[in-house]
Amino acid sequence: MIRVGIVGFGTIGKRIADAVAAQDDMKISGVLKVTPDYEAKIAVERGFKVYTLPDGLDKFKKAGIEPAGTIEDLIEASDIIVDASPEDVGRENKEKYYIKFNKPVIFQGGEDADVAEVSFNALANFEEAAGRRYVRVVSCNTTGITRVLSSLMLNGIKIKKARIFIARRGADPKEHKKGPINDVVPNPVTVPSHHGPDAQTVLKNIDIVTMAVAVPVTIMHMHMAYLELDGSYTKEAVIEAFAKTPRIFLADVGAGFQSLAQIIEYARDLGRPRGDFPEVAVFRDSVTVNGNELYLMYGVHQESIVVPENIDAVRAVLGLAPKWRSIEKTDKSLKLITEGKRYG
Amino acid sequence: MIRVGIVGFGTIGKRIADAVAAQDDMKISGVLKVTPDYEAKIAVERGFKVYTLPDGLDKFKKAGIEPAGTIEDLIEASDIIVDASPEDVGRENKEKYYIKFNKPVIFQGGEDADVAEVSFNALANFEEAAGRRYVRVVSCNTTGITRVLSSLMLNGIKIKKARIFIARRGADPKEHKKGPINDVVPNPVTVPSHHGPDAQTVLKNIDIVTMAVAVPVTIMHMHMAYLELDGSYTKEAVIEAFAKTPRIFLADVGAGFQSLAQIIEYARDLGRPRGDFPEVAVFRDSVTVNGNELYLMYGVHQESIVVPENIDAVRAVLGLAPKWRSIEKTDKSLKLITEGKRYG
Repeated sequence: MIRVGIVGFGTIGKRIADAVAAQDDMKISGVLKVTPDYEAKIAVERGFKVYTLPDGLDKFKKAGIEPAGTIEDLIEASDIIVDASPEDVGRENKEKYYIKFNKPVIFQGGEDADVAEVSFNALANFEEAAGRRYVRVVSCNTTGITRVLSSLMLNGIKIKKARIFIARRGADPKEHKKGPINDVVPNPVTVPSHHGPDAQTVLKNIDIVTMAVAVPVTIMHMHMAYLELDGSYTKEAVIEAFAKTPRIFLADVGAGFQSLAQIIEYARDLGRPRGDFPEVAVFRDSVTVNGNELYLMYGVHQESIVVPENIDAVRAVLGLAPKWRSIEKTDKSLKLITEGKRYG
Repeated sequence: MIRVGIVGFGTIGKRIADAVAAQDDMKISGVLKVTPDYEAKIAVERGFKVYTLPDGLDKFKKAGIEPAGTIEDLIEASDIIVDASPEDVGRENKEKYYIKFNKPVIFQGGEDADVAEVSFNALANFEEAAGRRYVRVVSCNTTGITRVLSSLMLNGIKIKKARIFIARRGADPKEHKKGPINDVVPNPVTVPSHHGPDAQTVLKNIDIVTMAVAVPVTIMHMHMAYLELDGSYTKEAVIEAFAKTPRIFLADVGAGFQSLAQIIEYARDLGRPRGDFPEVAVFRDSVTVNGNELYLMYGVHQESIVVPENIDAVRAVLGLAPKWRSIEKTDKSLKLITEGKRYG
């Protein structure tokens, strides 16, 4: 059993911790939490050992949580670290702590690409992470883009250009201070947004340009994608590619999926933890082929899409399983949609 | 003085009425209102004669508004009608009333294109409306697209393809029953949205495809545009085209315009009626040229962008002024931004 330490137990970290706990080849060695808040108490309730920063030990004791030790103790107790700290804090942790230990670390997409040797997406480049010391799972929007493009490429559909236009959720459900309210914010106002170049850290030879705005939504991102294909393909071939690629869900208007809200309602009805939807939700009715042009819309659940990717990254780095076996194992253990999916 | 009758005194109609009243070559003969609500009282306060449907006369009297007559009386008293009724009601009015009178009628973009002989945008095809009986001013998003593309073409920049991705405002400020809240809705889920084909009713030879989603915003639409130009142009040439074309406003992040909200705040600070912003607001920092590709973001104020177009449509149909003189007259009378603009 590989011992996985989770540094940062916020939106992403707590989900990865639960996902690790659901695997049969890895377990949680502990989680690092900086503040003894309600999320720290959730960690205790889950039975995870809670570590903190050296100067936070007293704070935790006062809050009634007995810390298992400091971040260095957590690293010692782990075979691999998944760092899910806020943006840029992962890099600080690397310089301050990780560099001293001979342990592999998985970072998140909030860090710049050069924090790691490889930027990772399971469908796209699982094998490149093998034996690496530092790997970075790309961010939510970038994971969405990479999955959609990979699902086409894995099925023989060649892409010449990808131009993707993103309506970003303004904040996560728990972020009470972020906006916008009743506004659309160029985010960023410059072109390209970071998502295009970021996707190119994984899919190195594809021409990808992205633009993004933030909207008053907390539930999911929405992408409007315009692809120029290299050759002529039928709409059926595109739908078929999405249908059989893991971690892609085809949402039909006829089945009631008229918007992002219904994707999340479906996740809630399925009894998924926290109402999460780690699959990319492609609106089937939006898939339109016109000559060598492909148009589609899809939703990206910002809180959970990277969770299965992190599990696979752990396996990829440590050589615990080959690509498709890892992806299938992850999907089954997390009860993602596996019907009709081809693993390999 | 041309007598203009306004049929429908809602979001668009009441603004067109005020704009007509601000001209020195036309005046309001009266406005048609179906319900004696607060907007009807605004019409009375403005000094407009209020007409209603034949079966509504008593209702108005009971509400303390003495109607000047029926819709047929309004048509009789007018040289031209601007119909700003809700979607599809313009066509019903045409069949029921307009067809009986020999008066020209301007319809709005909520009607299908075949309600009229010509779909109209002042920059694009002013002259085509001359002497026509039925003309249709295209809708807000289509007006935005048509203006942006026309401003390039009028300045010698050739367009090969326009792919435009729209985050539509979900509802107008006064629409208390419409959504979405906390959702992004494919609107429509199919490709293209009607805006592309609609813009092609004015710009007949341009390849335009649009996709649209609705977002929880009431203030403005946001467009993310990707254009393939026919030839190589500099970013400066594009900016120059926008700078000198009437009804385009270049919004700089450095001047505080970071989002749509600040465009509307500017309109309010300028003391514009109802806080309207009839110009297309192009985010200057978003304008990006990469080879023959042009990217930009712009805001479209759904409540007011078509107002100056309707004034020009009246002049175009009746031959009251040539294109650029009409556009300049309209812009000055409505206190739009005229600095640096070239009229002709």
